[in-house]
Amino acid sequence: MANNKYSLGIDIGGTNTIYGFITRDGSIIFHDEIPTNGAKPISDLIGRISDNVEEFFSKNQEYSLKGIGIGAPNGNHYTGMIQSPPNLSWGNIDIVSLFSEKINCKTLLTNDANAAALGEKFFGLAKNMEDFVVVTLGTGLGSGIFSSGKLLYGHDGFAGEMGHISIDFNGRLCNCGNKGCLESYASATGIKITIKKFLEKDSQNAFLQTLFRDNIDGFLLDKAYDEGNETAIKIYRFTGEKLGQGLSLVANLLSPEAFIFYGGFSNAGERILSSARKSMKDNVINNSGKDIKLIQSGLPQGQAGILGAASLIWTK
Amino acid sequence: MANNKYSLGIDIGGTNTIYGFITRDGSIIFHDEIPTNGAKPISDLIGRISDNVEEFFSKNQEYSLKGIGIGAPNGNHYTGMIQSPPNLSWGNIDIVSLFSEKINCKTLLTNDANAAALGEKFFGLAKNMEDFVVVTLGTGLGSGIFSSGKLLYGHDGFAGEMGHISIDFNGRLCNCGNKGCLESYASATGIKITIKKFLEKDSQNAFLQTLFRDNIDGFLLDKAYDEGNETAIKIYRFTGEKLGQGLSLVANLLSPEAFIFYGGFSNAGERILSSARKSMKDNVINNSGKDIKLIQSGLPQGQAGILGAASLIWTK
Repeated sequence: MANNKYSLGIDIGGTNTIYGFITRDGSIIFHDEIPTNGAKPISDLIGRISDNVEEFFSKNQEYSLKGIGIGAPNGNHYTGMIQSPPNLSWGNIDIVSLFSEKINCKTLLTNDANAAALGEKFFGLAKNMEDFVVVTLGTGLGSGIFSSGKLLYGHDGFAGEMGHISIDFNGRLCNCGNKGCLESYASATGIKITIKKFLEKDSQNAFLQTLFRDNIDGFLLDKAYDEGNETAIKIYRFTGEKLGQGLSLVANLLSPEAFIFYGGFSNAGERILSSARKSMKDNVINNSGKDIKLIQSGLPQGQAGILGAASLIWTK
Repeated sequence: MANNKYSLGIDIGGTNTIYGFITRDGSIIFHDEIPTNGAKPISDLIGRISDNVEEFFSKNQEYSLKGIGIGAPNGNHYTGMIQSPPNLSWGNIDIVSLFSEKINCKTLLTNDANAAALGEKFFGLAKNMEDFVVVTLGTGLGSGIFSSGKLLYGHDGFAGEMGHISIDFNGRLCNCGNKGCLESYASATGIKITIKKFLEKDSQNAFLQTLFRDNIDGFLLDKAYDEGNETAIKIYRFTGEKLGQGLSLVANLLSPEAFIFYGGFSNAGERILSSARKSMKDNVINNSGKDIKLIQSGLPQGQAGILGAASLIWTK
């Protein structure tokens, strides 16, 4: 019964890569998380995944592979190239050709935030939405934009760089070299800078010292916020206000039905979103922002990417 | 030969309204400009236009009317309503129903900047583009966005409010009540404020005094710029820099192939666009802005709107 087909969805991250076999209706039959090993050549990652694919289908001969969908940082849907991904040593690589030669089936690529947006559209909260934006809050801030039911790629495949819209052209220096990028405020990286700046003004604050010493820990912040820690409340209020400014720019341009938040820092939920919502409304024309929903993704952590990547195959 | 069909394209402005009969290939057979008379009820404008339409077709019996396309400030494509248009006393009006009852044919509505964008797509510089933004520079700043070959409306029909994205959340107070809106820098209204601020620092400057006394005159500024007047150069450089910041926000989100400028102040052309281009590039991630074209519309003043409005009928 080789009519039972799976798509292979792959979500390549800076540290780990998740892949899984997914049916047309979004059931994840099997998934695994492996180290990306971005310091090694890409052939290492492709080799490990293809070995696992081969093993899976040798054990499950009643199934066959319909195609491979990949989400990756700086993945370009139009060219099939990953272009100088941050934190990975690969430079520019034609990952679509490499995978389809190795595994011999149709392969499609998009970037990681677009994959998350596709996951929401086909299997998540956006099933019945035509116009929405998925915002991924992790080390950085990414976005995938749906308009009139279609993922928006732009002329060169690089639409959706919401992390790098500036909310202050004289603001913080971002890793990208520009100033005031939303990502430099509303992401783990941004919150780290905020904590540093708060600490400069309040050097004896033990909670800030703890936060600053460790990698920024959303869990620690969330817990402190829930216990009424004023510093934690200030950090999230400040971050939410900046996030809301960025959302207002997108809202004025695109009038989405909703912003859906996904990724590690999105677990802060209303702790950030309540002040983001107020700040967005304050800066949107005609108060039209009042109807735009700010919601947390309902998809399990790590699954939106592989679901969305796989959907590239099912919907093409 | 009633197979020879025209569309009626109407471009409703705060002061004047232009309407014209337009063939499928974009030939304007007849057009006229009449006062909008926005202080009177909408029935006044509709009555005058429908009288003219009746007269036209009674004289040209070999032709018939295929439909009416309307571009208007705050025109909502989805609802057919004009919603509290600025400078017009009409409040919320169901203009599509009013026109189609009066003239008895299919009527479609969009906003004025979207109409200009449709004009560029079907009859102007964007014929071969799928992803572009038309920016209308007049009293205010409007925009119509095409993505993947489709005009972008957003969830509520109000996408494209590029005039009200903030380039400085602590910046100038805009007429809309928010701060730092792009329109409050890069439009006739914005340049007026800039001249006022320049005059506050340089009160003896005769050229600034002249500019400030009159309504802002693009022609006067252009002439002074071309003669090397330093104040004129400073005004356009400042305005271009702010415009470029706004363009960078849109470019990061949408990656268009081009921005096309239309409307009274777009005649300044490279006087503004050269500094806008530099400012946009400086603020776009990965220098990807280097390939985005900033160009002046080639359509005659006043025609993009009626051509685009009429195209609603031909392309529906």
